[in-house]
Amino acid sequence: MDDFELSCKGLYRALTIREKYMKLAYQRFPRTASEYLRDIEGEIFKPEDQVQPVFTPPLQNGEDPFDTTNLPENLGYVARMKDGVIYVYADAAAADKHNPKDLPIWNQGYCFTYTHRRLKFLMSKFNVHEMLNEMEEMKELKLNPHRDFYNCRKVDTHIHAAACMNQKHLLRFIKKTYREDAERVVCKIQGKELTMKELFQTLNMHPYDLTVDSLDVHAGRQTFQRFDKFNAKYNPVGASELRDLYMKTENYINGEYFATIIKEVAGDLEESKYQYAEPRLSIYGCNSSEWSKLSSWFVRQRVYSPHLKWMIQVPRIYDIFRGRNFVPHFGKMLENIFLPVFQATIDPKSNPDLSIFLKHVTGFDSVDDESKHSGHMFCTKSPKPEEWDIAKNPSYTYYIYYMYANITVLNQLRKQRGMNTFTFRPHCGEAGAVTHLLAAFMTADNISHGLNLKKVDPVLQYLYFLAQLPIAMSPLSNNSLFLEYAKNPLLEFHKKGLVVSLSTDDPMQFHYTKEPLMEEYAIAAQVFKLSTCDMCEISRNSVIQSALSHEEKVHNLGKDYLKEGPEGNDIRKTNVAQIRMAYRYETLCYELNRIREGLKSE
Amino acid sequence: MDDFELSCKGLYRALTIREKYMKLAYQRFPRTASEYLRDIEGEIFKPEDQVQPVFTPPLQNGEDPFDTTNLPENLGYVARMKDGVIYVYADAAAADKHNPKDLPIWNQGYCFTYTHRRLKFLMSKFNVHEMLNEMEEMKELKLNPHRDFYNCRKVDTHIHAAACMNQKHLLRFIKKTYREDAERVVCKIQGKELTMKELFQTLNMHPYDLTVDSLDVHAGRQTFQRFDKFNAKYNPVGASELRDLYMKTENYINGEYFATIIKEVAGDLEESKYQYAEPRLSIYGCNSSEWSKLSSWFVRQRVYSPHLKWMIQVPRIYDIFRGRNFVPHFGKMLENIFLPVFQATIDPKSNPDLSIFLKHVTGFDSVDDESKHSGHMFCTKSPKPEEWDIAKNPSYTYYIYYMYANITVLNQLRKQRGMNTFTFRPHCGEAGAVTHLLAAFMTADNISHGLNLKKVDPVLQYLYFLAQLPIAMSPLSNNSLFLEYAKNPLLEFHKKGLVVSLSTDDPMQFHYTKEPLMEEYAIAAQVFKLSTCDMCEISRNSVIQSALSHEEKVHNLGKDYLKEGPEGNDIRKTNVAQIRMAYRYETLCYELNRIREGLKSE
Repeated sequence: MDDFELSCKGLYRALTIREKYMKLAYQRFPRTASEYLRDIEGEIFKPEDQVQPVFTPPLQNGEDPFDTTNLPENLGYVARMKDGVIYVYADAAAADKHNPKDLPIWNQGYCFTYTHRRLKFLMSKFNVHEMLNEMEEMKELKLNPHRDFYNCRKVDTHIHAAACMNQKHLLRFIKKTYREDAERVVCKIQGKELTMKELFQTLNMHPYDLTVDSLDVHAGRQTFQRFDKFNAKYNPVGASELRDLYMKTENYINGEYFATIIKEVAGDLEESKYQYAEPRLSIYGCNSSEWSKLSSWFVRQRVYSPHLKWMIQVPRIYDIFRGRNFVPHFGKMLENIFLPVFQATIDPKSNPDLSIFLKHVTGFDSVDDESKHSGHMFCTKSPKPEEWDIAKNPSYTYYIYYMYANITVLNQLRKQRGMNTFTFRPHCGEAGAVTHLLAAFMTADNISHGLNLKKVDPVLQYLYFLAQLPIAMSPLSNNSLFLEYAKNPLLEFHKKGLVVSLSTDDPMQFHYTKEPLMEEYAIAAQVFKLSTCDMCEISRNSVIQSALSHEEKVHNLGKDYLKEGPEGNDIRKTNVAQIRMAYRYETLCYELNRIREGLKSE
Repeated sequence: MDDFELSCKGLYRALTIREKYMKLAYQRFPRTASEYLRDIEGEIFKPEDQVQPVFTPPLQNGEDPFDTTNLPENLGYVARMKDGVIYVYADAAAADKHNPKDLPIWNQGYCFTYTHRRLKFLMSKFNVHEMLNEMEEMKELKLNPHRDFYNCRKVDTHIHAAACMNQKHLLRFIKKTYREDAERVVCKIQGKELTMKELFQTLNMHPYDLTVDSLDVHAGRQTFQRFDKFNAKYNPVGASELRDLYMKTENYINGEYFATIIKEVAGDLEESKYQYAEPRLSIYGCNSSEWSKLSSWFVRQRVYSPHLKWMIQVPRIYDIFRGRNFVPHFGKMLENIFLPVFQATIDPKSNPDLSIFLKHVTGFDSVDDESKHSGHMFCTKSPKPEEWDIAKNPSYTYYIYYMYANITVLNQLRKQRGMNTFTFRPHCGEAGAVTHLLAAFMTADNISHGLNLKKVDPVLQYLYFLAQLPIAMSPLSNNSLFLEYAKNPLLEFHKKGLVVSLSTDDPMQFHYTKEPLMEEYAIAAQVFKLSTCDMCEISRNSVIQSALSHEEKVHNLGKDYLKEGPEGNDIRKTNVAQIRMAYRYETLCYELNRIREGLKSE
């Protein structure tokens, strides 16, 4: 029984750490787990201790998303970076007394056997549940009027804006712009202004001849296990000029084409009515004007749709910028990423475009090839960001910690001002070391990929289950890059009760049809033989995980969606059987209760 | 060497049998194989000996598909059934001297080892080809202007009209008709006329509440290995009344709704421009008026689209009709199926609707659960169809032989008159005994499914390769009924060089998206990691296999499409690399040459 108690203690500790860090950053931690944690501590759970992120509610009829008349007043605060984290002071004279918090770590070794057995149990239990109840679940759904898989809401929880259209859409778009704008000056190359016609002439091609083959943006067998080759696919016809023209916010035409094609994608979502997407736009941290430029593009091009919830992705490419001497140290990169947001939060009117844009930004993502290894082990003795002036890239966990820390401070400030907050939703566990998943457990509201939870570490997988940490999975993307479709752990995670959603990642590279998210669901349904209840549960998970505002979640999931278990489920809106919800809730409570019992016997 | 020679002899014999039976029925046999066969026999191949089926060419601008003014004159011939086959006589007084031909059989045992080794070789050879040439093939396609996978023509070579819409489409259609026609009398049940509103009241439901779950037409885990449960899925909401109203050509509203929904599906195909489908409509053989009714529906409802090529499917359910005393013996069923077509061929003006319809019918299919076993072994001593008056169903091969024999005679008559001919394209090898595939090898222009070629019998698989006998495969259908997706032999057959196409079978039951055929291709591409060249080759195969007219094939594949090897391929239209075509041709010739050499050494 020693091992059992030690395991329970470790798991308890891990959950309290996550609970604490989520609360600090206004990110989510499930109520049920909090209730058990308080009970273990002999305390009473207080609902008012729960925090929720704040997302901008949908516009009222006639409201202009770009209206700047009601921007809040200047607070007069000063924001300054110290040790890689931005602090906010009452004024310039105020002393900076704080020190950054260390990233906590825990020992997980002895939990291995225990959690391994629990996960095996969860799997078998679901299989039994399925055999006993699948007909009953189906019956519930058949009796549920008007709602089915097609009209229950689903959110594409992970998609990159630069690849949010499918290859055929991009091809048609290029041909259309050529037909309409052949004589328009669209770029300046080596000081010379070129019309679209001239641009294509220098590339030695005519758009009429272009095909998806010559466009060459689709991942194929050649990209498997080759993230480098995959990244090159972002250049249509291998020409960075076309990427600049069609998929960038900053270029000679002020990102007009990129905005137009995104609005076409949004139009399709609005028409389909039941689909939303959370596209990522990049902030690199290379210089401090990026935010102004990006938000000006957003406002000038009117890139707004109620069906798009925006995310900022930060590529982990400090080493490239440092190598080219664009930044003196890692601290500067962090400052470029976060300081403008602090400033716009303190004095919104100083940058109206950015303030408007930030209302529609819902979170931060951290992106790049996780299989690249940095060699640096992040610990309390690691150099501070301002001291990190070598060309080498910091490790994944180093990036993650400093992003989390800055988002946390930022959210506290924004919450105070009644503004929307940001969630941290990094790419995590697509490849690389298991420490990535550990870092995200402590810092991320939810993650993308999570493939590596499958191998190596039952402790983390079990913790992701206990904390109901949502995972946006993209098995078609994985199939082209890291893991064959049939080996994808999506089904296994879903059966065990981890909160998984389906997302497309890059429709341009991976999908064939006009409805990439439906293609993603259809293939998962066919290959894994998902039931309607499974598919609707995954759809519901995607809404929960997403940055849809509270108001939209109430509308799409029901007014009690924040409650856990069957009472939080409105089957008329979600088409998830109450039998399923009860099974999930009972199973989670059973596991949490075991930990409580293990600690009591101590 | 004895075994080798014996094998070659057997394979030679089998090919000559197929060649002979295809020619008799105006069905296809590849030119390359014929050339080798003639060479083996020491004869010169004569191109004029090759036959081709005749399909009605596309209409010229402004031509009315339903125009009856130019129907041919009455020949005055008499058609009469004898021994299950219809014969044509100059007049009623003419004597019937012919005897029906026996179904030939051959011994295949000693070929097992030889063909097994050849197939293994073909597989390895393709893998080597792929490793050596895939980049070169891709390069060819990238340099091929304007054509890619999206705009190369593809035909859905196997689809049942009653399930040609997807579940969501049917649901929307039911709701729409209810909104528009609630007060319309739509059926007569137990002598009482009911409006649509009343009909739904008797079924105790309101269409507004209907969902794809309550509609319950989609196959799920419950249908795997249960063809009976699958067939029940054809009834929306489990109500045969709705099947009658929406998916039948004969009902109170003259099949109007069924016609409308088919025309909507056709409209989608016309809009997509590059897709065609070959839907099946049923003739049961239960009585002699079926053809008149079906063709009247076709003409009255104007069910014509240049993107649909019609097929007639005959369910193998004599046992049910005999059990209810609808027919006295199997011969009567055959007569009901074929005699009206003979009569309309001899005297088209006697039944203008049927004559018009037959211009757009391109072939016959034989359908039902192949895993049902009849117990009867078809041989020369089997009772003749007119003597088959027991309630038991004849075997698959018995059905196949008599369908083939009648189609053959019919085609000879129609060819004589300059009319379009029919191909025989049975469901075959979806389940059941391997003899099914043997029977089809001798009688069918091409088949649907062919799954069982995978197991048991390398001889037949090798013969299907040598004869380049096209197979319409539907892995998503199989996945719900007989075989898990990842185990589907599609990829294996394709690699070995069998001529495979992709088809949907029943979008209503199997598919999720608005583009079922693209969904079928997308999933195959993802799961089997098909290259663009693979996908375009499969698309090209589908056009070859299809009943698109000669004129349409010239338009879609190039003017030399009847030639074999690279010279028959117009890459600008097909987007199939010439490297691939050369590989296929060289590989086929090599195998045929081995047989020639084996026979020479004799």
